[in-house]
Amino acid sequence: GMGMVVVRNSTHYGIAGYYSLMAVKQNMIGITGTNARPSTAPTFGVENMLGTNPLTFGIPSDEEFPFLLDCATSVTQRGKIELYAREGKKMPEGWVIDETGGTKTDAKAAVSDLIAGRAALTPLGGIGEDTAGYKGYGYSTVVEILSSALQQGSYLKMLLGFRDGKKVPYSLGHFFIAIDIAAFADPEDFKKTTGNILRELRNSKKMPGAERIYTAGEKEYYHWLERKDKGVPFSPDLLREFRELCTSYNMQEYLSCFQ
Amino acid sequence: GMGMVVVRNSTHYGIAGYYSLMAVKQNMIGITGTNARPSTAPTFGVENMLGTNPLTFGIPSDEEFPFLLDCATSVTQRGKIELYAREGKKMPEGWVIDETGGTKTDAKAAVSDLIAGRAALTPLGGIGEDTAGYKGYGYSTVVEILSSALQQGSYLKMLLGFRDGKKVPYSLGHFFIAIDIAAFADPEDFKKTTGNILRELRNSKKMPGAERIYTAGEKEYYHWLERKDKGVPFSPDLLREFRELCTSYNMQEYLSCFQ
Repeated sequence: GMGMVVVRNSTHYGIAGYYSLMAVKQNMIGITGTNARPSTAPTFGVENMLGTNPLTFGIPSDEEFPFLLDCATSVTQRGKIELYAREGKKMPEGWVIDETGGTKTDAKAAVSDLIAGRAALTPLGGIGEDTAGYKGYGYSTVVEILSSALQQGSYLKMLLGFRDGKKVPYSLGHFFIAIDIAAFADPEDFKKTTGNILRELRNSKKMPGAERIYTAGEKEYYHWLERKDKGVPFSPDLLREFRELCTSYNMQEYLSCFQ
Repeated sequence: GMGMVVVRNSTHYGIAGYYSLMAVKQNMIGITGTNARPSTAPTFGVENMLGTNPLTFGIPSDEEFPFLLDCATSVTQRGKIELYAREGKKMPEGWVIDETGGTKTDAKAAVSDLIAGRAALTPLGGIGEDTAGYKGYGYSTVVEILSSALQQGSYLKMLLGFRDGKKVPYSLGHFFIAIDIAAFADPEDFKKTTGNILRELRNSKKMPGAERIYTAGEKEYYHWLERKDKGVPFSPDLLREFRELCTSYNMQEYLSCFQ
């Protein structure tokens, strides 16, 4: 009815949702997570201890696309902050905590402080206890334990990529759970109920000014529909960086891809 | 190595963590969740659609107490708001969303608006997308689906406790997963790694002014140590309510418990 495997001494496993979708294609529920380079502070802490540690679920539905929740247990991840820095935008409060316990909103400064270990990402729920940051911190810890203790692998600061001043492999751990729906119910009935839940959520009463309510995986599906034909949009700054990379690595034949 | 059961047509199952601890006592990882009376709005929504839907993990460690994360996937739950109302305190922003899409901070008004369906709890991560409320909304939806679709039971508005104007049973659904640690690693090694992770988190660098960093289940363990001998502290207002209940239900022999 269900199975679980854990992986030892790995590196970045790419898109967490990819593995959950493998289960979905077999009429199963897929659950996966990984630990990662330390970047997130625990509640009441300011030190980068936990990774962004995604806890990810893929669930079949009767729609054109499944329910797919693929997200970090931190409020955000470094890539999004780099995007804000590249576009010169200020970050929302609560994404990054500095050594004083305050929130940083300057994205460029945040990127260099995160790299230097002088700032940390915040757990889902934010800084402190008022908006329940201890819950995101808790889920992140679950992912850290499930990703390391079952395979007796590395965790927390062991994943910095450095030991005794030398660069070492990350040796990340992952876990994968698949639950066979047919062991519980007719998969078609299951998918219909899942679809009903998703449709009722989307059809519920919206905030004034909100165009629509999404369910997890829906936006990504529409993006995929558009991009599979039209390609992936890049910011002018990122295109320039790619062109510079083409030139510096002597790969001029790719320059035309990034105009 | 692992098993899962789902429950149909149930009612409130009490403390979610209790069931995870049953697994912990058998050297297993316990995971449980339940759907609940609709109270929480999806991201960009204002309507009470999802329950507080806890997603709960119990994990054995080599310490006196296990890792135990027992929390709602909403920022908070109605009981906590009732406590604020009883103590006449203002709530933090972001706990409750009203029909305008704004946050309510008056706890007394929030309790009555929640009961009347004119306000809703917010998902973990808060209102909108800036602080990643869509993640808490996503985890809450996972719990709603796992609690209902596998057993083909009730979900969302079916759990209001009313149908066609008549009071009906809640018919909640729950799920329970147990993972046998011995199928992956020596349980003693597993518990030591878990304990190491928890200890390293507690020993990491604190916010200026923060006394200590906790791990999930730690505070509850210390509370239990104190209360098992000294009893449970109540606010004067709550004691008065209990005394009134004793009188109105003609149970005067219990009055002395609530002085």
